[in-house]
Amino acid sequence: MKEIYLDNSATTKAFPEVIDLIAKVMGEDYGNPSSMHHMGVVAEDRLKESTKILSSILGCTEKNIFYTSGGTESDNIAILGAAKALERRGKHIITTKIEHPAVLNTMKHLEDEGFEVTYLGTDGSGRISLEELEAALTPGTILVSIMHTNNEIGSVQPIAEAGKLIKEKCPECLFHVDAVQGFGKARINPGRMKIDLLSASSHKIHGPKGCGLLYIGDGVRIVSPVYGGGQQKGIRSGTENVPGISGMALAAKMLYEKLDEDTASLYELKRYFIENALKIDGVSINGLTAEGPEGAEGTAPHIISVSVKDVRAEVLLHSLEDKGIYVSAGSACSTHKRTPSATLTSIGLDKGLLESTIRISMSVLTTREDIDATLGALAEIVPMLRRFTRK
Amino acid sequence: MKEIYLDNSATTKAFPEVIDLIAKVMGEDYGNPSSMHHMGVVAEDRLKESTKILSSILGCTEKNIFYTSGGTESDNIAILGAAKALERRGKHIITTKIEHPAVLNTMKHLEDEGFEVTYLGTDGSGRISLEELEAALTPGTILVSIMHTNNEIGSVQPIAEAGKLIKEKCPECLFHVDAVQGFGKARINPGRMKIDLLSASSHKIHGPKGCGLLYIGDGVRIVSPVYGGGQQKGIRSGTENVPGISGMALAAKMLYEKLDEDTASLYELKRYFIENALKIDGVSINGLTAEGPEGAEGTAPHIISVSVKDVRAEVLLHSLEDKGIYVSAGSACSTHKRTPSATLTSIGLDKGLLESTIRISMSVLTTREDIDATLGALAEIVPMLRRFTRK
Repeated sequence: MKEIYLDNSATTKAFPEVIDLIAKVMGEDYGNPSSMHHMGVVAEDRLKESTKILSSILGCTEKNIFYTSGGTESDNIAILGAAKALERRGKHIITTKIEHPAVLNTMKHLEDEGFEVTYLGTDGSGRISLEELEAALTPGTILVSIMHTNNEIGSVQPIAEAGKLIKEKCPECLFHVDAVQGFGKARINPGRMKIDLLSASSHKIHGPKGCGLLYIGDGVRIVSPVYGGGQQKGIRSGTENVPGISGMALAAKMLYEKLDEDTASLYELKRYFIENALKIDGVSINGLTAEGPEGAEGTAPHIISVSVKDVRAEVLLHSLEDKGIYVSAGSACSTHKRTPSATLTSIGLDKGLLESTIRISMSVLTTREDIDATLGALAEIVPMLRRFTRK
Repeated sequence: MKEIYLDNSATTKAFPEVIDLIAKVMGEDYGNPSSMHHMGVVAEDRLKESTKILSSILGCTEKNIFYTSGGTESDNIAILGAAKALERRGKHIITTKIEHPAVLNTMKHLEDEGFEVTYLGTDGSGRISLEELEAALTPGTILVSIMHTNNEIGSVQPIAEAGKLIKEKCPECLFHVDAVQGFGKARINPGRMKIDLLSASSHKIHGPKGCGLLYIGDGVRIVSPVYGGGQQKGIRSGTENVPGISGMALAAKMLYEKLDEDTASLYELKRYFIENALKIDGVSINGLTAEGPEGAEGTAPHIISVSVKDVRAEVLLHSLEDKGIYVSAGSACSTHKRTPSATLTSIGLDKGLLESTIRISMSVLTTREDIDATLGALAEIVPMLRRFTRK
């Protein structure tokens, strides 16, 4: 049975070229970049090479790039670091109701510490309103954190417009963007989009696990919550994960070299899936900007949120699994909690569908055959499962 | 020119078997352990397998093992997490003057937050005094953090005795041990040694960079400073680095399977080095428990701190580098700071030698030939450099 992996927003398969590079760096260029001898210099060169690639992708300079252990750590350092640096100027923060737990739970902690957090809602397609953002900005707002692409439904936020608005109304307020699901899928230029802090993850873009990126804009000062040897200008102490960073940079390079082509293919697959899935009785698609396949426009190319009336997500997930098709119920990152998805609630999803929603997340490795097989499986499974539930 | 890597306390070369396993897990078992489908289960099985290996090495149960991005993060979570959990009971913490910056700078942060920290000194061999520890313990002491093996001179602390003392005098006080330089070199049983929290790092034991271990004892409650998806029972949010963890566990397994044999060989090499290095005019060895080769007893088998009168460490380092021999000036982890080493100061090293001290750190891959070549190089270089300085 051919396995079809459609859970790429949970994690991706590393590119073979990435695995080879990591193995090479681990075996040959294994020095500590802090070491003063040749092996340290070679390791530092690897870091510089990676930084050059990543800064070129983000359209920034090399000194804007910092490395972490992943999206969660990038979000933690950015948000806690900004709050600490600016707490004397104000204690108001704005974010959205549909952020990843790495952002939401950091915000909850800051509320415990005396910060006031405004959570922006979304419309039915999962997008925030710029008017609501504008109304929420006050002279005491020190940080706005808005995700680039939602991990559950693939809605994409108006980041550039939000950045412009924030800097016009609140020039000293920092703008953080969790781009864990957007990096590698969309062109993101933090400078032009007025982003001060940006988080990205390696294992969501066919790079290694345990590695992440934090962009910090020119002149942006944060107080890092990580204490140690002072590596990376004190922002993130700890020996740099040189092999992982090299692998992440290569994965990003490979994705961005053919981004336009891959994005077009993914949108085509997404529209094709939507068009055919909607023919199955009881199936609806969430987070679209319009009804039907054309509603994929303006959403992420790789994420499709599918609700199936009267069928529990877990049951559907395991039925698909029996056919070698791997999807997610909600997002893998929140399966530990049994509370209903904040994202699905925010878009006003019918309560009866909250526990009946799966996520299909594609990658550049996903083929038309994979999608055809998935559509075929759904067409077979869904009517059967719905018959059972109705008895 | 054959390269001789003697900077293993900065970082090690990963074992080939470790690299192969990481490549295999990255390519095949790439699922997210939080995913509910088959790929998630396979990834979770990899985690369980690693945890089984590591808990067996530490003589604990699997639920005591947590994974981080490295020694620095383990130290941060342990110390900040313990302070936060116990701050209502007291605000006094005890540590030593010779800890790694990952501990020392976390302590400095806690001082800024209103905690009172006592820094224990050491004797000339770099060991703390149990009497001084006993005298420092008060009913308000909530945490004691003592490193297992010092990273600059290789002194090994009386951890079991300290643990016994702490639990007798202050039963509710937590005991944290930074074992980054001790794990993989010594048998450490946290339960028997009364250790509540223990940090270890993967890249110091021929495992991958970007991976670490945090042991948390039964019934020990800490409040993690990491916010996110709630992975690892909320102690360390973020997708687990399954390939890295698998590699770390394999590296640890390989080291502990032949630990006694390797330790005996390393001590033999250390004594051999000391005996011959001391024949070179101007050379002295720091951190020994007695003068001469027999002073290696009770110290770490792999670390040798060498002072060379009238020769700057950087100059010696680069002269050795010219011969393909890589050592460290002080510790790689503190080269970012130009302050004199706290460890060397604490053992009362002659001020004139503070900037004239290099660290040689061996590993199981170090051979007698490597040490002979290093001794030969020192015998040639040191008299020459000393002649220059005296002119």
